[in-house]
Amino acid sequence: MKTRIETALASALATAEREAPPKLAAALRHAVFPGGARVRPRLCLAVSEACGGDAPRLADAAACALELLHCASLVHDDLPCFDDAAVRRGRPSVHRAYGEPIAVLTGDALIIGAYDVVARAGAEHPRRLSPLITTISRAVGTPHGIVAGQAWESEVDPPLERYHRAKTGSLFVGAAMAGAIAAGADPNRWRPMGDRLGEAYQVADDLLDAHAGAEEAGKPTGQDLARVRPSAVSALGTEGALARLRRLIDEATAAVPECPGAPDLRALVVAMAERLVPAGLRQSAA
Amino acid sequence: MKTRIETALASALATAEREAPPKLAAALRHAVFPGGARVRPRLCLAVSEACGGDAPRLADAAACALELLHCASLVHDDLPCFDDAAVRRGRPSVHRAYGEPIAVLTGDALIIGAYDVVARAGAEHPRRLSPLITTISRAVGTPHGIVAGQAWESEVDPPLERYHRAKTGSLFVGAAMAGAIAAGADPNRWRPMGDRLGEAYQVADDLLDAHAGAEEAGKPTGQDLARVRPSAVSALGTEGALARLRRLIDEATAAVPECPGAPDLRALVVAMAERLVPAGLRQSAA
Repeated sequence: MKTRIETALASALATAEREAPPKLAAALRHAVFPGGARVRPRLCLAVSEACGGDAPRLADAAACALELLHCASLVHDDLPCFDDAAVRRGRPSVHRAYGEPIAVLTGDALIIGAYDVVARAGAEHPRRLSPLITTISRAVGTPHGIVAGQAWESEVDPPLERYHRAKTGSLFVGAAMAGAIAAGADPNRWRPMGDRLGEAYQVADDLLDAHAGAEEAGKPTGQDLARVRPSAVSALGTEGALARLRRLIDEATAAVPECPGAPDLRALVVAMAERLVPAGLRQSAA
Repeated sequence: MKTRIETALASALATAEREAPPKLAAALRHAVFPGGARVRPRLCLAVSEACGGDAPRLADAAACALELLHCASLVHDDLPCFDDAAVRRGRPSVHRAYGEPIAVLTGDALIIGAYDVVARAGAEHPRRLSPLITTISRAVGTPHGIVAGQAWESEVDPPLERYHRAKTGSLFVGAAMAGAIAAGADPNRWRPMGDRLGEAYQVADDLLDAHAGAEEAGKPTGQDLARVRPSAVSALGTEGALARLRRLIDEATAAVPECPGAPDLRALVVAMAERLVPAGLRQSAA
């Protein structure tokens, strides 16, 4: 699965590297490789396989698009006007390495490239293309997706649940539903699992921010506290957040719909979620 | 035609306004209304009509998407790290009115919204959706579209023709080809017209920058000279640039392929191109 994802991502960037302005091409590569855990594309492919996986190229394209969109959101979120992050995945952030104009354009190019990848693969399955693209757009756009989530940070007293759902949860829901659509299955059955997993991921990210060092996280930690951002840790305490994470993982596995690949998918969900717990807390989370 | 475009744009923003974070919703509206001449969507609709216009809702969606993408590029191009423009279309630029984070997100949301609009309308014409989206992506992405054009500005000594084609010409080519695809026609016949018209627009924009006041242009002028950017006026002189503009308009009208709507379309091309000449130069351009 890892190979399928990395191959699809490399292929998506190949044209840009060959003919694009050199700094932009290098920045695109910097933003996408080497990646993180690729949890969203893995989820997408796993759901597609669980649904029969009859269109692997379309599923690969959807998975690739989700990761490109995730990378785009990281590049823009790291900009000086947002988090002003110097480090991402243990290396300089894109704007630190290539300058702010190229960082803005890298995010834009990744968003556009994501849709292009899906549209190309969709030529073989034209009836799946429209729902696939609207599902992905809902996950990243406004009013329910990542962009809306980031924009809630510019409001005084944002609605917390909507903020978290939009900024983090939406792309997990989108990944699960996109995997189903790519395989010609009903996407709505997969929404609850994506939703629970997305919330688990948010809680785990809050734990990571509060309890991991920058090396483990690959980015500066302690940011929620420093920026007075809402966090499961500040709301529930460490033990409370860990208990919530465990419950969400249980709910996510229970929400996997019955299908031939359900057992494998449940195992993957548990593995994904457990990996997110900071190393120092894993004993108490087990 | 104007009504169709404004209605499609208003409809595309309606959901965002209802449920998005309020500042983002307001910024989206600010970026799109009131618009400029809407030349790209008008070109798209005119080509669609000239090709028989059998799918008006899909054509409207494509036209709307092209304008949303154009607006996105203006919002990002105005950011402090690019042109740092305080004024656009005679009003404060988005980042001046709503702050830099919201301006970055507005551009992102407009790009995502553009694809969403096309995908929704494409459900009725699934076989046209894949070519429509890849054509639009080529016009705005990398290596040939607007994003690549803007990124060439970060390179020392960029290839001028590729720079101009990417930054300005590509979206005219995309608009013409998208109009054809929306109507189920062969898009490649329309590429030369879009290409000539795009170049005419670039020359006209250079003339506007050199010879119009900020009020007529709706933005600060004299920027090419101030930023030592390549310009048809600095390369050819005012008379030379006007002569080139006249020749390009002739070539664009001559490149309209034979079809039932060809005469109307030729008249539109001339009208569009003439409108771009600064008022003070219109006599000598006639």
